Amino acid sequence: MELINLPVRALTPENFAPFGDIIETGLGEVKLINWDITERHHALAKADVIGEEPQVLMNIFRSKPWQLPLTIKMVERHPLGSQAFMPLNGRDYLVVVAEDNNGVPHQPVAFLARGNQGVNYHRNVWHHPLLALDETSDFLVVDRGGAGNNLEEYYFPQQNFTISDREI
Amino acid sequence: MELINLPVRALTPENFAPFGDIIETGLGEVKLINWDITERHHALAKADVIGEEPQVLMNIFRSKPWQLPLTIKMVERHPLGSQAFMPLNGRDYLVVVAEDNNGVPHQPVAFLARGNQGVNYHRNVWHHPLLALDETSDFLVVDRGGAGNNLEEYYFPQQNFTISDREI
Repeated sequence: MELINLPVRALTPENFAPFGDIIETGLGEVKLINWDITERHHALAKADVIGEEPQVLMNIFRSKPWQLPLTIKMVERHPLGSQAFMPLNGRDYLVVVAEDNNGVPHQPVAFLARGNQGVNYHRNVWHHPLLALDETSDFLVVDRGGAGNNLEEYYFPQQNFTISDREI
Repeated sequence: MELINLPVRALTPENFAPFGDIIETGLGEVKLINWDITERHHALAKADVIGEEPQVLMNIFRSKPWQLPLTIKMVERHPLGSQAFMPLNGRDYLVVVAEDNNGVPHQPVAFLARGNQGVNYHRNVWHHPLLALDETSDFLVVDRGGAGNNLEEYYFPQQNFTISDREI
């Protein structure tokens, strides 16, 4: 199995646009509300759910950390719904996504997400499962519930990918 | 204007059931996913949106802290959608809600929410705007977008309410 090293990119709206939204202050319209006590950073992401009786669920994912170097063997996608991850402990994490090529993922792309940055994978975007770093970490996850098969997995048959360094 | 002191209660599923959901590990079904690296604390809350072309938005609220003693003069409700608040800085905050009595809020009830506890106000539940404490704090907010009037405010005409102490 060939091993290809993936560089880690900064997570910016420009870099991440093909894959989803970044949930972070400073990126959206700001509305002052509640007697100007609160800034509403408005509509940084939207849930996108389709299929039979779709629901938008709020869950907490508690994940053990991954150790570097790590190996990316697969990606998955959710054809019926977007999936958002918002870190609750302020810790950086890795985001690995891939563009689609006729139902098969391209070579993945890796981003370092800062502890104040959430991501919302658009519906049907290939992504690796959650990659927490350093310590067990909690994330608020906003995704789809309801009937239907909402999971497709793809294991890379000929190459795997490594992330050896989190430096951007 | 008469001033009535509100004691602060612990935020528990039993206490909060008439008003909404608590988003916290330990309260829901747990599924081990991603090669058992991650616990999915499943469906702790659901977005509930109705009306014309409803959307589920993810926003960040950045709020200045309130100082105690504080005065509760009003509550509001959203007839077309639930509204969830998840703290992103791990800081405690206050939750003030009221049961409805034929379109008018009862005397409010106050809860101390811990920094690991989110709340999801059910659709059309009277609540006070966000009450951050101690420092400027960020919250992920999951609520409704779309056409239609989704805000009703009620200013108490004869009494206001004070919270003087956050001790439970």
